[in-house]
Amino acid sequence: MSKFDVVIIGGGPGGAKAARVLADGGASVAIVESAHWGGVCLNCGCIPTKMLLGATAPQGLLHGLERQRVAKGTIEVDYDALQKRIQRFTRGSAQALTKGLEQAGVALFNGHARCTGAHHVEVLADDGTVSATLEARRIILAAGSRSAAFPGLRPDNDAILDSTALLAIPAVPASLIVVGAGAIGLEMADFFNAMGTKVTVVEAAPHIAPTEDADIAAEMQKLFGKKGITCISGVKAASLLTRGDQAVLTLEDGRELFAEKALVAVGRVPNTENLGAEKADCGLNPRGFVSVNEYLMASPTVYAIGDVNGQTLLAHAAEHQGTYVARHILEMEQAPYNSGPVPSCVYGSLEIMRVGITERQALAEGGEIGVSSAQLMTNAIAQAGGDACGFVKVVWQNGKVAGIAALGHGVSHLVTVAQLLLLGQYCGERLHHFMFAHPTLDEILHTALEAPPKKIG
Amino acid sequence: MSKFDVVIIGGGPGGAKAARVLADGGASVAIVESAHWGGVCLNCGCIPTKMLLGATAPQGLLHGLERQRVAKGTIEVDYDALQKRIQRFTRGSAQALTKGLEQAGVALFNGHARCTGAHHVEVLADDGTVSATLEARRIILAAGSRSAAFPGLRPDNDAILDSTALLAIPAVPASLIVVGAGAIGLEMADFFNAMGTKVTVVEAAPHIAPTEDADIAAEMQKLFGKKGITCISGVKAASLLTRGDQAVLTLEDGRELFAEKALVAVGRVPNTENLGAEKADCGLNPRGFVSVNEYLMASPTVYAIGDVNGQTLLAHAAEHQGTYVARHILEMEQAPYNSGPVPSCVYGSLEIMRVGITERQALAEGGEIGVSSAQLMTNAIAQAGGDACGFVKVVWQNGKVAGIAALGHGVSHLVTVAQLLLLGQYCGERLHHFMFAHPTLDEILHTALEAPPKKIG
Repeated sequence: MSKFDVVIIGGGPGGAKAARVLADGGASVAIVESAHWGGVCLNCGCIPTKMLLGATAPQGLLHGLERQRVAKGTIEVDYDALQKRIQRFTRGSAQALTKGLEQAGVALFNGHARCTGAHHVEVLADDGTVSATLEARRIILAAGSRSAAFPGLRPDNDAILDSTALLAIPAVPASLIVVGAGAIGLEMADFFNAMGTKVTVVEAAPHIAPTEDADIAAEMQKLFGKKGITCISGVKAASLLTRGDQAVLTLEDGRELFAEKALVAVGRVPNTENLGAEKADCGLNPRGFVSVNEYLMASPTVYAIGDVNGQTLLAHAAEHQGTYVARHILEMEQAPYNSGPVPSCVYGSLEIMRVGITERQALAEGGEIGVSSAQLMTNAIAQAGGDACGFVKVVWQNGKVAGIAALGHGVSHLVTVAQLLLLGQYCGERLHHFMFAHPTLDEILHTALEAPPKKIG
Repeated sequence: MSKFDVVIIGGGPGGAKAARVLADGGASVAIVESAHWGGVCLNCGCIPTKMLLGATAPQGLLHGLERQRVAKGTIEVDYDALQKRIQRFTRGSAQALTKGLEQAGVALFNGHARCTGAHHVEVLADDGTVSATLEARRIILAAGSRSAAFPGLRPDNDAILDSTALLAIPAVPASLIVVGAGAIGLEMADFFNAMGTKVTVVEAAPHIAPTEDADIAAEMQKLFGKKGITCISGVKAASLLTRGDQAVLTLEDGRELFAEKALVAVGRVPNTENLGAEKADCGLNPRGFVSVNEYLMASPTVYAIGDVNGQTLLAHAAEHQGTYVARHILEMEQAPYNSGPVPSCVYGSLEIMRVGITERQALAEGGEIGVSSAQLMTNAIAQAGGDACGFVKVVWQNGKVAGIAALGHGVSHLVTVAQLLLLGQYCGERLHHFMFAHPTLDEILHTALEAPPKKIG
């Protein structure tokens, strides 16, 4: 039995960050990872998708310039070489991560971890035998999530794939159905479209990018359409099956769609079945996520961070929570956890970024709501890039900036500026108090913050 | 004689901004422009250069991916079409600018303006006759600057060009000598290199990008070298002449360089010769710039903003000063002008950004100086772009962030984030207080701000 101040279950962004902060703070820490160090984000999530999209980025830019008739050309992406490069990079990053943790004095365990009590964690080897037993003052659950599957919408690893399998697909399919138009679905649609795949996106919600406002989604769907991506929304999938060597999607309205492959990207479920959370006096909510209080505590001795608590399924939310929990354990934080405004992006040749709340959320919350906006075509840097479609919108609530969102080429570059402008409530008089660099894409945020808000609702 | 609250001389970024803020604040305003509405920035400065560099951007990205062997291709920029597009865009932007000013109630005059007294401005037509006489409570000098020329370094519009002439050059030259490695020289070098021109950059100062730190400049020179751009620094030009159909640059060490064209980009001089500043009781400094006090006032009735006062020769500095001066006249500001940290960028396939002071400036100012840094190669978005060379450095002065600079692909996207992080002094504990989006290039700033500073000097 090895004793630690803290045992962390899960070596993804949240767990690794907590481990590092705790170790730097003088705590003795163990961390257990069952699959890949760096978690979904590094190995089959944010990072590999960004590297795919990075490889098709010149093409996206070139197309914008081609429409302006100032450039033409051909670009060929070597898909095999790209896959190998991604593997090299993620492997190297995982090694850097574990090396950094080891150097900080963290004890690393490979295996599946489960709680056996309020202070105890067992590590199981691949063959199911117990390879280590750990005792801790505090346990942090950071076990993450995996792709959801529903009856009728279940990857079969034949023609029906989840995002992990699609990321590792050995050859670019001729056609692809994407079920679910959240960030993962949209990014995959964009990449494979750029690679020449005929892509159809299907979303059960009234519009694609269902967590965003309808105006953002409508513009994205229009611009995706110009790229040749078909979007169908507001219709549920009745079934998705491999028939022969094809994926066949039957919609509830009776339509049938066929493609070489289909991606199921209809959400994520927490890795809580064999976590032993109940043995550590933790409760799960009806969707299987670990319930936590305002300190992200699931029990007096157990914290849960990242996807596994279901609050915000984003790598940087996990990191932020991991930092908070580590500092709470180190008694460097006393206040309840406050996420602050949450930034999020959809990346690709056409991007969405948002910080804070949507117009829809603001209307639901109430107060005096307004929206001000600015078109990217008025921005010189957007114009210089060739493709200046899209816009920025600022959501105002009782005279304060409550959310900033954007749709267009390269707008993921705006997310941290928007975050800091929102946090600092840089509007009105305060906008004059610093020098805004010119020419930058960032200036479009300034323009939108200066534009008179239209009252909504 | 037309009477106004304020007459502004110069319709560039500073003058136009001041006019707009004054008009919106209820003042009666006249503005006089002698050449192009929007000034150098829009017509032959920041904007056209960004549009040139925007057209070669896909190529820059593609080269990064080619080095990683994940993509290959050919891109051809249609230089004629690009020139036409730039003209269309700048003409349209200038029209939008004048329309916006007219709609705000500003009186626009075309012609050369000169002060004839503390409250009087004459507008001269092209033939030198007085086309209007204006009276004002306050005058704002925003007459801008133009390329400097020195004996032996004088554009002849044959093979020796200033930046305005090079921007309008009808065909891409086979070879180009760039004299002066500031932002203008470096951006032109980058663009023409991408277009296939053999480029040599010559800088009299000890290193290229002379206003930046030596480590930034050294890395840029190294990476420029890999692109095929030759940089020579620390040697003055003895003469630059058209000989036959060639530009011939003779260096003080005796070397001779030959090229089809040469660009003289050795600084800017103010447009003050025929401004009549002395008639309005304003003084000029020995370099010809209008002297101003801490309120940017050149006399009790005259302000000077932008390049013409010589403080900071950047469009956004002019805008910031224009806003301040307009608000000072409107009595919305009482405090002396405070630029705050000044952001600046060099754009292109390889970029520099900086906010606040350099390490060199910090050492000159004194105090306890430290530098922390982060390599772009550790950033996933930089890696996804293919070209992850370069770094970020943070200059610390007495425990505070005094400057942030970066060198690498796409780092101009970091400038406003860096500005806001510096303004908010987001370091130490404060860095935990908001959620930093992942994966973003912006994270490299977080990494550099978290890295332990090395003590300098």
